[in-house]
Amino acid sequence: MAAQSLLLTDLYELTMLEAYRAEGMNGCATFEFFIRAMPAGRGFLVAAGLAQLVDYLTTLRVDPDELAWLAASGRFDAAFVDSLSDLAFTGDVDAMPEGTVFFADEPIVRVTAPLREAQLVESRAINLLHFETLVASKAVRCALAAPGRTLVDFGLRRAHGAEAGLLSARATYLAGFTGTATVAAGRAFGIPVFGTMAHSYVQAHADEAGAFEAFVRARPRNATLLIDTYDTERAAHRVVALARRLAAEGLAVQGVRIDSGDLGALAVRVRAILDDDGFPGITIFASGNLDEYRLRDLVRAGAPIDGFGVGTRVNTSADAPYLDCGYKLQEYDGVPRRKRSAAKATWPGRKQVCRRIDAEGRWQGDVVTLVDDPVDGTPLLQPVVRGGRLVTALPSLEESRARLQRELGWLPAALKSIDPVAPPGPEISPSLVRLAEAIDART
Amino acid sequence: MAAQSLLLTDLYELTMLEAYRAEGMNGCATFEFFIRAMPAGRGFLVAAGLAQLVDYLTTLRVDPDELAWLAASGRFDAAFVDSLSDLAFTGDVDAMPEGTVFFADEPIVRVTAPLREAQLVESRAINLLHFETLVASKAVRCALAAPGRTLVDFGLRRAHGAEAGLLSARATYLAGFTGTATVAAGRAFGIPVFGTMAHSYVQAHADEAGAFEAFVRARPRNATLLIDTYDTERAAHRVVALARRLAAEGLAVQGVRIDSGDLGALAVRVRAILDDDGFPGITIFASGNLDEYRLRDLVRAGAPIDGFGVGTRVNTSADAPYLDCGYKLQEYDGVPRRKRSAAKATWPGRKQVCRRIDAEGRWQGDVVTLVDDPVDGTPLLQPVVRGGRLVTALPSLEESRARLQRELGWLPAALKSIDPVAPPGPEISPSLVRLAEAIDART
Repeated sequence: MAAQSLLLTDLYELTMLEAYRAEGMNGCATFEFFIRAMPAGRGFLVAAGLAQLVDYLTTLRVDPDELAWLAASGRFDAAFVDSLSDLAFTGDVDAMPEGTVFFADEPIVRVTAPLREAQLVESRAINLLHFETLVASKAVRCALAAPGRTLVDFGLRRAHGAEAGLLSARATYLAGFTGTATVAAGRAFGIPVFGTMAHSYVQAHADEAGAFEAFVRARPRNATLLIDTYDTERAAHRVVALARRLAAEGLAVQGVRIDSGDLGALAVRVRAILDDDGFPGITIFASGNLDEYRLRDLVRAGAPIDGFGVGTRVNTSADAPYLDCGYKLQEYDGVPRRKRSAAKATWPGRKQVCRRIDAEGRWQGDVVTLVDDPVDGTPLLQPVVRGGRLVTALPSLEESRARLQRELGWLPAALKSIDPVAPPGPEISPSLVRLAEAIDART
Repeated sequence: MAAQSLLLTDLYELTMLEAYRAEGMNGCATFEFFIRAMPAGRGFLVAAGLAQLVDYLTTLRVDPDELAWLAASGRFDAAFVDSLSDLAFTGDVDAMPEGTVFFADEPIVRVTAPLREAQLVESRAINLLHFETLVASKAVRCALAAPGRTLVDFGLRRAHGAEAGLLSARATYLAGFTGTATVAAGRAFGIPVFGTMAHSYVQAHADEAGAFEAFVRARPRNATLLIDTYDTERAAHRVVALARRLAAEGLAVQGVRIDSGDLGALAVRVRAILDDDGFPGITIFASGNLDEYRLRDLVRAGAPIDGFGVGTRVNTSADAPYLDCGYKLQEYDGVPRRKRSAAKATWPGRKQVCRRIDAEGRWQGDVVTLVDDPVDGTPLLQPVVRGGRLVTALPSLEESRARLQRELGWLPAALKSIDPVAPPGPEISPSLVRLAEAIDART
């Protein structure tokens, strides 16, 4: 995969680097990553992916094999390819900590570095920040829709590739999920891992009751039995009969899972079967095409479901599978810069976002301003990397997860709703407006 | 990334393996991968991802570090973890070649192996086949909407992670794109790589005309200049002035790119500026939120655009960001199996898809039948792996790309339309219907 590779970039980054080198241009550049517009109806977003970005920046090195391939491609001067051999990221990063709530037009990461370094990392920086922010911002809606329920990421199989599977496990956990089914994400990020059984397990056995018994005997501590392979209610009766018989041996069934049909109605009937036969402790877990809307409907209807497996629709952020985002040059060689492309104009200069929360903990709004013109409020972008090195250790994933929960405390209820809302418009400081006007007059 | 890792799987695969081991179950199992339902309005799909699946299966090995982590997790018996140390895939794979057109309910990959091997690989098999099929099936619509135009994958930055970026470059090329901007995909898959410049390049220079000139001097053979940073038409005039001046030195501008605004209207005006000043050879390239619908509209309107950069909406398959697909147990230990879950029932047994094309090259339909009950037509699933080893080398990416173009030759025009169509219903052989009924009566 070579996820840290120099070659994991768009060709134009290298093309521009060659031109910058020919021109002797490598002054100090500031790029910022931000979302241009919220997905329709969304009230807020959750910053995520900074840990992966910092890992990429601080470990970016050039493989001699890759340089040889570049040289052999015939696209570049030999001297330029040679010049890449000692490439490293030596610049600065300021960023909102992961788990911070943010809105459109607010930079969440600011990179200040020699132009060529800051330019080269554009493609992968967007690739990492965009995806984790996308998934965390979708997953938090599930957590808000089903408070207090167990939520497990089931999304590896239909995630867009391996890295998407791993990073969506991370982003959903950051957003408040209980854990993931993806084993490698458990190892990579220390996320709790959960699992039940597949339909194939039941099908491979001559009969369903035999499959259930074999599974409990093999996994006596945490057997969750999948009961919708053939007939869900009949299977629930089989679970009860098995649980009664195994109780004599000191064995217990932990839970059942329903993966198809009308999950709410089936859960009511299965709960009744389990309770009526004396097994109120057997939990019900549900899965299958779930997202925040279905979770809300199930929870509102009082479905007796203890936990949910949530996969594809969240891991792919199915109703908004990408964010309109950019990583844009805002200052070069001490001079603020501004792109004016139709519908894609940017606010120039090195910026900060100041958040105002009053003494009662009520949010009074965010202001986007110039770094050199601080306004009242808490500055959200904090120093992360200086001279290519981490300033201090990044927060742990658990700390970022806890941060998001604190953020949800000040966020107005209207913006936390999963119903469509009008997101708050950004407040732009007067100094920033004046700067943009001055640049427009100059260009 | 450890994309070939044993741990890149759902926990339940390992949980089931432990149970199967405790039960002594490891008979011959057949799983099939198929799409349950076409995305709304789509007429066909394109099989892709087989090369990555075969690579995964034939190189799957267990890392001692991973085993140690699993053992330390406390989730599994030590003897079970030990038993994984010599795990390898020793089974068979039959599949439709990449680039084959297919429809819902048709298996495109059939895996037959000892139960534990065939089960373990489920998560990653779906992860690979689903994603490349998803993107190839979306990208081919772009190729159909803009025949004869250059189409370049621009999607790395908003693809869902690094692997999605690489594999979507592969899938779009398979589907008929001309190339990709992703350098690593060029290296990994031999795909032609294209690139222009970013707005930041223009912004970093004191003025646009200076940026254009510096770029052409640095890249004299293939400079494509991005002209929408400030004012597209003014920039086009600057390109003409530059081209005229550089012509005296024997230097040429290859093309311009427009990335925002009304692409069709701007292209007309830019084309006129270039032509009127004697540069009909300077090409126009366009990008920005393109998909098959916008391509069709631009092409129908006669926009003088030579090539398109197509990114996010295709790499994320934005209007259908996942396929309803499964990898399901169809036979175990010689006995056909069937799942009957609501809306997710499967056709049992080892199956083949037979395609009927008449002497005039007209498609007469596909039949899904049992392997043991062949019907007229060309069998689409072919032997790929036997006993864990490739039968013959897989087709090259170029060959798969050419296969798809041949397939589009027999596909009815109505199904190739990018307007919503009713996809053909699958024809199920009588033997398969009888088998399903017999199993339902038995279970």
